[in-house]
Amino acid sequence: MNSSPVRKAQPDFRWDDVEVQHYQREGPTPHKELTRQVLFQDAVDHREWRYFEVAAGGHSTLERHEHDHAVMILRGHGRCLVGRHLFDIDERDLISVPAFTWYQFRAPDDGILGFLCLVSRDRDHPQLPGGEDLAALKSDPGVAGFIRV
Amino acid sequence: MNSSPVRKAQPDFRWDDVEVQHYQREGPTPHKELTRQVLFQDAVDHREWRYFEVAAGGHSTLERHEHDHAVMILRGHGRCLVGRHLFDIDERDLISVPAFTWYQFRAPDDGILGFLCLVSRDRDHPQLPGGEDLAALKSDPGVAGFIRV
Repeated sequence: MNSSPVRKAQPDFRWDDVEVQHYQREGPTPHKELTRQVLFQDAVDHREWRYFEVAAGGHSTLERHEHDHAVMILRGHGRCLVGRHLFDIDERDLISVPAFTWYQFRAPDDGILGFLCLVSRDRDHPQLPGGEDLAALKSDPGVAGFIRV
Repeated sequence: MNSSPVRKAQPDFRWDDVEVQHYQREGPTPHKELTRQVLFQDAVDHREWRYFEVAAGGHSTLERHEHDHAVMILRGHGRCLVGRHLFDIDERDLISVPAFTWYQFRAPDDGILGFLCLVSRDRDHPQLPGGEDLAALKSDPGVAGFIRV
């Protein structure tokens, strides 16, 4: 991190001294067109404050985990699954993802979806859905048409 | 907090189910035209994610404390003091306020300054500057002209 207390925003939702990471995990990476920027690596007692961007037509991973997420949409719009419900999401909307709740973000076909996400730095690994989980999710036709794995 | 995982943004940087608090503390309140909205009361292990707004011509309190702050400008522009240095701040700029560092935000005379601020829910009380602190700060003419107490 820069020694200056202020890091300036750059065009296109980039920042001074913040690396754009093409988001990968070990093993399968069932997301599409996802980047991550860690804005505050150790913000306030081991919390990470990140900015994620999903390119047009892309999506985040369908996953769940024990740690909770606090999210604010910063750029564009899209849709998300939280639990069994789908939501339209727009700039500055607030999303709470509780523990062990399936969730996924999708950008529209014609625009970027960018969101701030606050998590604990010491967090459990995300879980991917198994066959039974997917079957349960797909029992709702709306959810079945939304999710990408 | 609403039971829905999504709380929609409203016009003018307001949100569903988020109260606009006129920011007051016990005792002297040396700020001007400051409001607070707690976006996530218990976001991620006892962290609060708040949105502050300083009206045109207003300022936050000149203060310091042990707990650190992570800040992102969300609306408008302004200036801030962090330590002994002044910074121009614009939308999406990131500001790290370290422990025991004097800081103050000021809105311009003709516009609102709004910023996201992440803190620990269990935090120490802010300290206000005493006579010696103010004298030290005012030894810099730029800082002397900036601060409001």
